[in-house]
Amino acid sequence: MLFRQLFDQETWTYTYLIGDETTHEAALIDPVLEQVERDLKVVTELGLKLTRVLETHVHADHVTGAGKLRELTGARVAASPSGAPCVDQQVKDGDVLTLGGLSIQVLATPGHTDDSLSFRVGNKLFTGDALLIRACGRTDFQNGNAGQLYDSITGKLFTLPDDTEVYPGHDYAGLTMSTIGEEKRHNPRFAGRSREAFIEFMNNRKLAPPKKLDVAVPANRSCGKPAPQAQA
Amino acid sequence: MLFRQLFDQETWTYTYLIGDETTHEAALIDPVLEQVERDLKVVTELGLKLTRVLETHVHADHVTGAGKLRELTGARVAASPSGAPCVDQQVKDGDVLTLGGLSIQVLATPGHTDDSLSFRVGNKLFTGDALLIRACGRTDFQNGNAGQLYDSITGKLFTLPDDTEVYPGHDYAGLTMSTIGEEKRHNPRFAGRSREAFIEFMNNRKLAPPKKLDVAVPANRSCGKPAPQAQA
Repeated sequence: MLFRQLFDQETWTYTYLIGDETTHEAALIDPVLEQVERDLKVVTELGLKLTRVLETHVHADHVTGAGKLRELTGARVAASPSGAPCVDQQVKDGDVLTLGGLSIQVLATPGHTDDSLSFRVGNKLFTGDALLIRACGRTDFQNGNAGQLYDSITGKLFTLPDDTEVYPGHDYAGLTMSTIGEEKRHNPRFAGRSREAFIEFMNNRKLAPPKKLDVAVPANRSCGKPAPQAQA
Repeated sequence: MLFRQLFDQETWTYTYLIGDETTHEAALIDPVLEQVERDLKVVTELGLKLTRVLETHVHADHVTGAGKLRELTGARVAASPSGAPCVDQQVKDGDVLTLGGLSIQVLATPGHTDDSLSFRVGNKLFTGDALLIRACGRTDFQNGNAGQLYDSITGKLFTLPDDTEVYPGHDYAGLTMSTIGEEKRHNPRFAGRSREAFIEFMNNRKLAPPKKLDVAVPANRSCGKPAPQAQA
């Protein structure tokens, strides 16, 4: 499997490229609109053809490159049924997508947002903003729910093998990856913290809204393209 | 082998952590002073003990964390004989350092600076600022030499197996790794370019000096600590 982690400096977003080395089919997870040209250059230079774009959720902090990538390559965009309505394929917990000979397992991990998915490919787990390195996504907008996030992470992601590699949607400290074992031991949001204590912590963070919330969410519900009503 | 890529957002610098899973010995390559606390936290949380710090060269764009790490952990700092005089061990082309059961092969790759080294551990190559992704280090200060850099990269690094993974000291486009095969095919500085054309290109770039040159170089020659003469 070909694998690349890509970073958007402005929004601290990680995009992931996975590719099947035999069929040369490729998927991008959580592409950023401003990085579409860079991402396609990497895809091309690795001899790949983009056939899928996977969204972990409707992002509030950056605009997705999904729609532009679909336009340019014909790639099919997939997300949760409760996510952006513009996608080509709605995927839910337990679904398995194929990418050449690779299998992409879909895990519903709601709580940061109600549409949050994680994707598992072999030993690699792409967690979006559900599980971050030594942290987790906030739960105070887009139908976030702290109790649900606690259950998604401790009841689902933490049951995966300890050596599962964790690739998050963001990191704000310059860390690039973790493992499930590490997060079980060292993530201060969960290690030794009860569900009740987690909910209390998350519900009292008093964070400012994400800077791009009002722009990014409507744009992302249209796969990064202006919504028809916005053009009218 | 445990492996982590770490990023310093302010200076776009990559630091690398490698660790032996049996003896738990660890090395940091090109640590950044401002990130020492973060880096040591990762080392500790992974159950490792820092025993080595490796410098690819005397950096001009950030101050090294080597001296502070040595103070805090007793780790031994290694660099080129023509690099910082403050180090514990001078290493040269062909040397092999051990880190528990791991072997770190030293390759002299001068040209960005006269002291530039690359380090090879298994299939991973840490190139500092000699070979960057689709680019290379500049050659207009610290005894840089474009012809020498061309020879280091095309005559030495490009003779390694195509699937060797390349981990550079910086990337300014959000790319995190490459391979030797990719760089041979797609690095515009070298692919299809003669030594003469490369020298002409590099010698006519008219770049502004690195912002931290006057501060970083003297600091780094003292492993990130003020030099004695600067204190007098």
